[in-house]
Amino acid sequence: MADYVFGIDVGGTSIKCGLFQTDGTIVDKWEIKTRTENNGDEIIPDVAKSVQQKMKEKGIAKEDVTGLGMGVPGPVMADREVLVAVNLHWGHKKVAAELEALLGFSVKVGNDANVAALGEMWKGGGRGTKNLVMVTLGTGVGGGIIVDGKIVVGAHGAGGEIGHAAMDPELEASCNCGNNGCLEQFASATGIVRLAKEELASAKESTVLNPNMISAKAVLDAYKVEDVVAVRIVEDFAKTLGNALAIFACVVDPEIFVIGGGVSKAGQPLIDVIQKYYQRYAFKSCKETPLVQAELGNDAGIYGAAKLALE
Amino acid sequence: MADYVFGIDVGGTSIKCGLFQTDGTIVDKWEIKTRTENNGDEIIPDVAKSVQQKMKEKGIAKEDVTGLGMGVPGPVMADREVLVAVNLHWGHKKVAAELEALLGFSVKVGNDANVAALGEMWKGGGRGTKNLVMVTLGTGVGGGIIVDGKIVVGAHGAGGEIGHAAMDPELEASCNCGNNGCLEQFASATGIVRLAKEELASAKESTVLNPNMISAKAVLDAYKVEDVVAVRIVEDFAKTLGNALAIFACVVDPEIFVIGGGVSKAGQPLIDVIQKYYQRYAFKSCKETPLVQAELGNDAGIYGAAKLALE
Repeated sequence: MADYVFGIDVGGTSIKCGLFQTDGTIVDKWEIKTRTENNGDEIIPDVAKSVQQKMKEKGIAKEDVTGLGMGVPGPVMADREVLVAVNLHWGHKKVAAELEALLGFSVKVGNDANVAALGEMWKGGGRGTKNLVMVTLGTGVGGGIIVDGKIVVGAHGAGGEIGHAAMDPELEASCNCGNNGCLEQFASATGIVRLAKEELASAKESTVLNPNMISAKAVLDAYKVEDVVAVRIVEDFAKTLGNALAIFACVVDPEIFVIGGGVSKAGQPLIDVIQKYYQRYAFKSCKETPLVQAELGNDAGIYGAAKLALE
Repeated sequence: MADYVFGIDVGGTSIKCGLFQTDGTIVDKWEIKTRTENNGDEIIPDVAKSVQQKMKEKGIAKEDVTGLGMGVPGPVMADREVLVAVNLHWGHKKVAAELEALLGFSVKVGNDANVAALGEMWKGGGRGTKNLVMVTLGTGVGGGIIVDGKIVVGAHGAGGEIGHAAMDPELEASCNCGNNGCLEQFASATGIVRLAKEELASAKESTVLNPNMISAKAVLDAYKVEDVVAVRIVEDFAKTLGNALAIFACVVDPEIFVIGGGVSKAGQPLIDVIQKYYQRYAFKSCKETPLVQAELGNDAGIYGAAKLALE
């Protein structure tokens, strides 16, 4: 009986691994190093070895495994092939086929941000829904769109690339992607620092913020104690993000927005200010769509990868 | 053998009806009046009568019909129930169940803009694709999102309500929906007239446009002869629409954008200027996504409704 499923989340420095029962109960989780040498050619064999070792350790036979899901930092086509993953030193790679050949059971692959969204739908902040937009506010802004329980991959693997939504194309500062005014330039940790520097350059009020040691965390902490300059920065951030979410709702009209990533650790006060602007800009039928915090943190990827394998 | 399928497109003044073979070959099309009296209670029996009459005329038995699809101007849940359709004088109505009881075969219902998108995917400008964004530039701006061959209905029936994407929430003029700066205020026929009035109020150059007889068609005709004021208006229109499409691409990353509605009759020159701005603002992986004109015109609804019935 196929009772187990593996969820693997491949990052640029470490690979998170999870062994789950098919109902989503986690049995074990561990990490291995990401070896990017030799164009990242060690990564897939390393994963296979680690999984096989775990199976041996737990006395799990190949026949007991439904499959393995894997999240990777890059665009993925048809649940099987990675087009490119710069951080892993991968070009086009037939990941599912390679790993299946080593393991002897079914493998599915997804983009890491999309897979995290699936994880939050399955066992996190979006539990019980089948249509959600996940927004990951980290160094950049990532996202995942789930429609009817399935990841929207898109024609070029760019489904859920919401960090690059052109919210203010007239902005002088340019994004890493080469465009101007991407959501990421407002709503990521880096974006908050950018907004803060702008604001501090012109602010006349006294503030706890130190222009020489500015970080997203410093801004969010100052926001919680109602520092007037920090409030203006966070309102700016929330206005652009709320506007973006309102636009996304006109496209896919999700049941829920799940907000994750380091910036979201600021918690409910941050959710509240994003929601204020979301409600102002959203189309009337969607104004009450809830915004919630993600719940799985760094484990969203392994949960989502496992869920992907079960589809 | 179930060889036939009906596609019905219910509008506020007339109901378009199509009889198709299941491969999409149209056998016959006709129209009946929309009788909105008695809270629109005549509409469903009228459709049933007209369909039964056509079956008799063509010698088609109930067993020869796979089903009937219907597009209605309002939000639809689960392919069966209409939440509200102001133009038909309908509140919440169990349309599929009512019509099935009269006809004795399966009925599916969809929002008219969404259904038109499905039609363009099946037999129109989006033939051969399974992921598209349809944009209908008419009096307002409608839309339909197709992912993996299926309409994205959304949690509140607002999937594809792209006309109400908040592109410029600081805009003073308000939209019919109550918000400010909706895409519809820039990209519809009404929006073009609004932009033209603004532009004409400040333009110093001579122009063929007459401020007292301004229409979207007049602007688009003047654009084609390179009237300098009309060019500015159309660039404004295209900039906002291109920006919106670029944002939508970051959400669902379609294979193709299909542009329909009265405004799109301006043809390739209009498509070209929208595409120019789309490419400027789109995320790199999506810059080459084609924009094409819709091909089915007013028949998109009956084609899409028939396709819906075949799902």
